[in-house]
Amino acid sequence: MGESKGVVKHILLAKFKDEITEEQIDKLIKGYANLVNLIEPMKAFQCGKDVSIENLHQGFTHVFESTFESTQGIAEYVSHPAHVEYANLFLSSLDKVIVIDYKPTLIHN
Amino acid sequence: MGESKGVVKHILLAKFKDEITEEQIDKLIKGYANLVNLIEPMKAFQCGKDVSIENLHQGFTHVFESTFESTQGIAEYVSHPAHVEYANLFLSSLDKVIVIDYKPTLIHN
Repeated sequence: MGESKGVVKHILLAKFKDEITEEQIDKLIKGYANLVNLIEPMKAFQCGKDVSIENLHQGFTHVFESTFESTQGIAEYVSHPAHVEYANLFLSSLDKVIVIDYKPTLIHN
Repeated sequence: MGESKGVVKHILLAKFKDEITEEQIDKLIKGYANLVNLIEPMKAFQCGKDVSIENLHQGFTHVFESTFESTQGIAEYVSHPAHVEYANLFLSSLDKVIVIDYKPTLIHN
């Protein structure tokens, strides 16, 4: 398995609490995206709503994907004051959350 | 929010059963990767093991990310005989699974 340039993907699956409005969700998503401007090791961010058809999404409704150059970069991100402040707000709006990091690897058969 | 060319990401989080060996996991991963060669609408595949430090991974150990050109492409993939055969084998090796699809969107603040 060959690692693709050491890039690390930070995947967050979210289910928002029922009382969180679409407008609040939009604001939270913009706040998440803005972390790219505040935290140097965070290189990219994208997100989207669940559009799956297999009914294996276990209630999660949104995917957030950030890209870092290294696991060390994620450690810096996690402890960065801008992340800590945002995460407190964001996590308090969620019913369920999963965060998983991985180094994307291409498989050659 | 501007969609990035209609690409749809198919994210699968897995926790393998305790009795599944590393060798079996390697074989299953190669079988998953090989679906790219068998199912036309599946355009790319990569995967990796959890390297997260926040302890929010809820026991999931592997991330599998496939790329499709459309949600219709995912529907074709899901019902393709090669996928159905592989999924029966793969899912029977898992303790937990989440599958979520999303159209990655860049957010502009």
